[in-house]
Amino acid sequence: MNLGSLLYREQRRVDTALRRVLPRPGTVPRTVRRAMVYSLFPGGKRLRPILAILACRAAGGRIADVLPLAAAIEMIHTYSLIHDDLPALDNDDLRRGRATSHRVFGEAMAILAGDALLTHAFEVAASHPGARRNPARATRAIRVLANAAGVTGMIAGQVMDLEAEGRRFTRATLLRIHSGKTGALISASTRIGGIMAGATRARINALRLYGEHLGLAFQIIDDILDLEGHSDRLGKTAGKDLRARKATFPALLGLAASRRHAERSAAAASRHAASFGRRGRPLQAIARFVIDRQS
Amino acid sequence: MNLGSLLYREQRRVDTALRRVLPRPGTVPRTVRRAMVYSLFPGGKRLRPILAILACRAAGGRIADVLPLAAAIEMIHTYSLIHDDLPALDNDDLRRGRATSHRVFGEAMAILAGDALLTHAFEVAASHPGARRNPARATRAIRVLANAAGVTGMIAGQVMDLEAEGRRFTRATLLRIHSGKTGALISASTRIGGIMAGATRARINALRLYGEHLGLAFQIIDDILDLEGHSDRLGKTAGKDLRARKATFPALLGLAASRRHAERSAAAASRHAASFGRRGRPLQAIARFVIDRQS
Repeated sequence: MNLGSLLYREQRRVDTALRRVLPRPGTVPRTVRRAMVYSLFPGGKRLRPILAILACRAAGGRIADVLPLAAAIEMIHTYSLIHDDLPALDNDDLRRGRATSHRVFGEAMAILAGDALLTHAFEVAASHPGARRNPARATRAIRVLANAAGVTGMIAGQVMDLEAEGRRFTRATLLRIHSGKTGALISASTRIGGIMAGATRARINALRLYGEHLGLAFQIIDDILDLEGHSDRLGKTAGKDLRARKATFPALLGLAASRRHAERSAAAASRHAASFGRRGRPLQAIARFVIDRQS
Repeated sequence: MNLGSLLYREQRRVDTALRRVLPRPGTVPRTVRRAMVYSLFPGGKRLRPILAILACRAAGGRIADVLPLAAAIEMIHTYSLIHDDLPALDNDDLRRGRATSHRVFGEAMAILAGDALLTHAFEVAASHPGARRNPARATRAIRVLANAAGVTGMIAGQVMDLEAEGRRFTRATLLRIHSGKTGALISASTRIGGIMAGATRARINALRLYGEHLGLAFQIIDDILDLEGHSDRLGKTAGKDLRARKATFPALLGLAASRRHAERSAAAASRHAASFGRRGRPLQAIARFVIDRQS
């Protein structure tokens, strides 16, 4: 299997799903729709929705059943980037190689575009044809999604991250920050893939564990790339963590030990994916990709 | 029936429901929970959740079935107030007689507390015992709620409101702004009451129409109170609309014609409530209350 062509194909699938679920032009005020589209396209790696698709397929589900949820997941990820970049939060000018939303549309519209993407994600998750056919499954997916995005997940991570800036931090704090900021939505993505496939509890749990280990590996590599990387390759401002005295793995353990930690996490993720046999192989390839990536 | 004691009893019921669905202390970062609680308690009139409860009862449903949704509706209303008050939007210092969230907790925390309330509302709407017993109903309620809060509802209203400031506006624009900013969530509340009661399509439609007319009456009176009122009685800065050259009914029609318009809308709402017979009487009393209120 060629991972590059798999990622390319799935990214296109996610883009198509996103275009399909966006509100039609003319049905909503033009500016806010433009701001939503600006941050959604062209996207980043589309890692989270692709994981939801691959997890659904690993569990024997049909891709069509998970696609609206994959789009909802990417909308929630995008909202969180827009709000995190705001002047009152990380105050960043650059994202995915372009000016951040508030630099282009102003702060008011960036706040509203983020709110709109977050809200629209739940509308999509409750409105697709599968949600009418199987509302129990849809409700469960919404529960997992809201829990990951909410105050015990992504928002907790963001709050702890802000509060840890410039302070001494422990490994336990750092793990909680990372599990909230990145792990929560990544493992929600793989769980939702399993839920929409109608998988057993045990299989959904294996997908959750895969996602948790993968999320940690992903975030540690993110920290390392921020430290080593170049802004033009990353598409966002490099070296910011160090300047903002953020709680990161390299700051706690150094670069070499951080990379070893990420590799152990990715290997653990891969073992959980292996329990799905041949169908789990794309998830294993993603675990390798997360470690090897340069941006 | 004494409306005052009914409102008092239902407000307490809503407060209890809100406390029950909030994340437990110790399970989430303290600051963001404090900011959520600060804006939720003491609340305002709790009009929207009370409407959901009264609509559910009018349609013959059990209050317990609608309470988690009533709490979710109030959380969404509260998130919208926090974000609307931000410096980049309406830049207001006063809300419900107290300093706004960003004045107390800073802008970053106010943005995150709003995001947290919005997200938590959907978690609550998908997690209550009734959602597991009757997921079709829960999914439908989530669809209505997200649609009202989203880019075709509240966010559209807010965007159009910002864009209309200081410009000439038509009656059609004004109606669209009001229907988005206030009407959408109010009529979603009464619809959700009907949905959670398991009402027929015709009855849910009557509740929707009641909510739409009531929402318009409510917003026109809000515009009038902003013009005539005093900040200390309103608990928010009075006269702001005029200074910001906002699109309002008094600015378009004058005070007397605006009040007549509100009264006609409230009367129309009342007629839809009357179709529920004796059980619709509290909704009729609310329509009267919305017109007579001084704050």
